[in-house]
Amino acid sequence: MKFSPLVQELIQSLKCLPGVGAKSAQRMAFQLLERNRVGGKKLAESLALAMEQVDHCHSCRNFTEQDICDICASPKRQENGQLCVVESPADVIAIEQTGEFNGVYFILMGHLSPIDGIGPEELHLDVLANRLANGHFNELILATNPTVEGEATAHYIAELAKQHNINISRIAHGVPVGGELEYVDGNTLSHAFSGRKNYL
Amino acid sequence: MKFSPLVQELIQSLKCLPGVGAKSAQRMAFQLLERNRVGGKKLAESLALAMEQVDHCHSCRNFTEQDICDICASPKRQENGQLCVVESPADVIAIEQTGEFNGVYFILMGHLSPIDGIGPEELHLDVLANRLANGHFNELILATNPTVEGEATAHYIAELAKQHNINISRIAHGVPVGGELEYVDGNTLSHAFSGRKNYL
Repeated sequence: MKFSPLVQELIQSLKCLPGVGAKSAQRMAFQLLERNRVGGKKLAESLALAMEQVDHCHSCRNFTEQDICDICASPKRQENGQLCVVESPADVIAIEQTGEFNGVYFILMGHLSPIDGIGPEELHLDVLANRLANGHFNELILATNPTVEGEATAHYIAELAKQHNINISRIAHGVPVGGELEYVDGNTLSHAFSGRKNYL
Repeated sequence: MKFSPLVQELIQSLKCLPGVGAKSAQRMAFQLLERNRVGGKKLAESLALAMEQVDHCHSCRNFTEQDICDICASPKRQENGQLCVVESPADVIAIEQTGEFNGVYFILMGHLSPIDGIGPEELHLDVLANRLANGHFNELILATNPTVEGEATAHYIAELAKQHNINISRIAHGVPVGGELEYVDGNTLSHAFSGRKNYL
């Protein structure tokens, strides 16, 4: 005994979402069918549209339905001469919200992870190398996550960029603003000490 | 600064799923766009189909794309004379898997919950009353959840069914099979004692 074919198929399809197992998928299907048909139809439409039309920006590899995303298309951004490498589109949003950075981005869509079969090719580092060779950048800012994989990826990209006569920098490690020293982990604290700056 | 319009809309739509907030929706959208376009398209299709075609069985209110679901359509099931009231389609699956029950069902799709605006009308108890009046049932089995709301709903339905000269029963409360007495809560244990049966 199972649910009716269409319901069964909907539950099965919902399981492709990350973090959604059999029970959650069932709950989602029932919720949409019973209480939110409008939302369900809307979701079906947005999904179909996005899966069909959204592609990667040819320049920075961010998700966009245009050939070139808005940031890459801006002449002001291009003139700035800074290129910031991040792991995900969400990182771009976070950096944009600070208002600190006015250059262009390159989004890796992940990090090097040989165990998952993600190597330089999967991160499209050839596109990045091309941009470094052809663009007139004066600084490459490595803003991958401060994790083991992120550090390894940053190191790999730095090695790759060395030949292009360009400043290579890494975002600073240190104590986060607003935290208490007591609760900061030892690794971060030792980074904060070794990276200390002259004050006044 | 936001994501591109289609991506933004996809993230927004994904938030209609229960238990999915802004961050999860973002993660789901990126995962589908980056690693599982096929799954995303499949989900869009199943969703559109299910939202459009799946309706309630006219008899038991279970989800089905037919007028009458398979269980209600079976003559063998109808002749059995037992009607079991449950809260959700998942409960039907659970009961069917035991193989203990051969009658038909009525699915409430929820429980009485005045605070959420769910009263007898929302549970379509008029459909149930019609079936009790017109069908030839000899037993009504109340299998709502053993929660406060489930008990209240069972009580309400029992009152409703009283006039129809029909046996009304409630599934047994007691210690679950395979558990240890030590870890059973007091309420369940007192139910288990008051509901004890002659042995041998």
